[in-house]
Amino acid sequence: MINRRNLIGAGVLGVGGATAAFANPSSAPILGAPAITRNRRRFNMVTTWPKGLPGLGEAAERVAQRISDMSDGAMEVKVYAAGELVPPFESFDAVANGSADMYHAAEYYWTAKSTAYPFFTAVPFGMTAQELMGWIDFGGGQALWDELSAQFGIKSIQAANTGHQMGGWFRKEINSLDDFVGLKMRIPGQGGDVLRALGGAAIALPGGEIYQALQTGAIDATEWVGPWNDFTLGFYREAPYYYGPGFHEPGASLAVGMNLRVWESLNTGEQAIIKAACESVNHTSLGEFTYQNSVYLDLLIREHGVKMRSFPPDVVKAMAEAAWDVRAASGKDGIEKRIYESFEAALKLVREWSNWSDGPYYAARSANK
Amino acid sequence: MINRRNLIGAGVLGVGGATAAFANPSSAPILGAPAITRNRRRFNMVTTWPKGLPGLGEAAERVAQRISDMSDGAMEVKVYAAGELVPPFESFDAVANGSADMYHAAEYYWTAKSTAYPFFTAVPFGMTAQELMGWIDFGGGQALWDELSAQFGIKSIQAANTGHQMGGWFRKEINSLDDFVGLKMRIPGQGGDVLRALGGAAIALPGGEIYQALQTGAIDATEWVGPWNDFTLGFYREAPYYYGPGFHEPGASLAVGMNLRVWESLNTGEQAIIKAACESVNHTSLGEFTYQNSVYLDLLIREHGVKMRSFPPDVVKAMAEAAWDVRAASGKDGIEKRIYESFEAALKLVREWSNWSDGPYYAARSANK
Repeated sequence: MINRRNLIGAGVLGVGGATAAFANPSSAPILGAPAITRNRRRFNMVTTWPKGLPGLGEAAERVAQRISDMSDGAMEVKVYAAGELVPPFESFDAVANGSADMYHAAEYYWTAKSTAYPFFTAVPFGMTAQELMGWIDFGGGQALWDELSAQFGIKSIQAANTGHQMGGWFRKEINSLDDFVGLKMRIPGQGGDVLRALGGAAIALPGGEIYQALQTGAIDATEWVGPWNDFTLGFYREAPYYYGPGFHEPGASLAVGMNLRVWESLNTGEQAIIKAACESVNHTSLGEFTYQNSVYLDLLIREHGVKMRSFPPDVVKAMAEAAWDVRAASGKDGIEKRIYESFEAALKLVREWSNWSDGPYYAARSANK
Repeated sequence: MINRRNLIGAGVLGVGGATAAFANPSSAPILGAPAITRNRRRFNMVTTWPKGLPGLGEAAERVAQRISDMSDGAMEVKVYAAGELVPPFESFDAVANGSADMYHAAEYYWTAKSTAYPFFTAVPFGMTAQELMGWIDFGGGQALWDELSAQFGIKSIQAANTGHQMGGWFRKEINSLDDFVGLKMRIPGQGGDVLRALGGAAIALPGGEIYQALQTGAIDATEWVGPWNDFTLGFYREAPYYYGPGFHEPGASLAVGMNLRVWESLNTGEQAIIKAACESVNHTSLGEFTYQNSVYLDLLIREHGVKMRSFPPDVVKAMAEAAWDVRAASGKDGIEKRIYESFEAALKLVREWSNWSDGPYYAARSANK
């Protein structure tokens, strides 16, 4: 492959300008025109993901790689796994105070900063991946997200989506609502609040600490992501009952959060590269999770004897009722209230559309073969 | 906003190199380092979309805009609506023979070139948007697509997805299989083959010619995209029954097809920009269609008296049976057979995953509020 940069200055193919090129279609480099130059910039990215974690850690690495590729190396991002530069849950503060340039994380890890953050990751009985993408980009979500994060000096962009997350791994079967009373489960965000409403004890742990907690009995159950990531962390060895579908995270969006002063110091082209890198990774990861989850679900069932279960209808009903209350409790005042109301208005609209489209489509495809 | 390019040459902030920048986190431009330069290139893009069509035409415009933004204008793409440079269905040949640099279109418009092309757009009872993204990027789809399109001198990239497409607009209700016999319907690709298997007459028409055909009675029914695009073309004024879900296009992917010699003449950075522009538009459009379809479905029902209908169960069953045969008929030999087999293997896997995740999630969310 010829690297056209090496040819600059040769000046043999001068073309009169854009109009001439369009009238006589040609994609040859217009070598007579002045070259575009870019300055070199370096960024560091902290993440909440254990080193080498498939899907999530890879998404962060892909954002960095695409930024480098698209800028011909003018922009380089160094990615740090959880704990390498700061502990995972301190990523937000590190970016806010400028000791890191950006993070790759789930926004609902920052619920202590604002109860509205979960709406930008996933909330119980909320939106699926594509529904959330619609609200953020076209239903007013991004403007509210920008307003929220600007309070902390951060600019946030969608930068991966896991798709549907499973209901979790349980040592014992869930046969009734009583089985949730006293249950110690790793489940963060609003999903944890739903568990608490059902009498359970919700515990937040970063990915790298879950397996040991399950092994030592510190927790009775855990959700994490889906078959692919869950297989990697080995939960099936400790808790054989795998519940699906999950209702706490119908499509979890991950985000790049960038120090706002750094973001604002970038020119239009640099911002466009970072945004497209993040959004193209959102595309890539949603497809990757969908495909790899299907491969690993098959593997878990056929080769590891995982016992697939669905929550009983009365449990689902109780979860749903709690979910509507939990979401409302996250949006009582101020910016949190406006985010909650915007999310609920969009959810009402997209529910109706999904009830005429993907919902009955999946049901009919499953029933007819 | 400071455009850092304007500062080049000032040379006041020299930093020792990448290592120093990482050790002392800083995203300030490394002005002492040589700037990256890019040559200027111009491309023309033909499309199969009527001028100004929301969603599809916009997706093509967005690809062009992002390529320009990310390259600081070094790469510019001029977009031509259907018929402006070549008739819509001649876009493929125009790119293959080099009279255009790229197209934005639905690959299933090229079924006469290869019966395998529909697998890269949408096939009856096939994959939803995110499932298709998974197969193409991670299940071997892209390598097969590259092999197929290289035969025609084209490189294809996913560059928009409409999500679920509705079953279409009908003058009269569909109450039984008999109602399909002799029905003249605009429905392209394998969906058209399913209609033929049910006794109907499938007709392929580009978007700009459908309304008149419906108005004059040349066709009895039409599918197009979903509530948003369908509203724009006004079908509800001629055919009041709107059927959902559709089974012919569970998530239609649109593509940029680029002249292969032009693609191979690009350097790594230029290719990375075009690929990320296309993939980020795939992200954007899937969210946009999901959100706008929900807005326009609501509008069509509340303000335009559209009558929502679902196909009867025996019709769905017959469509499904025909669909499996139609897909198989598209993959009998050679590369077509390998594409068909790869698609079916991935469909089998992702069906099982969707049956544990999004499928029952949508059903439970619909049933519990």
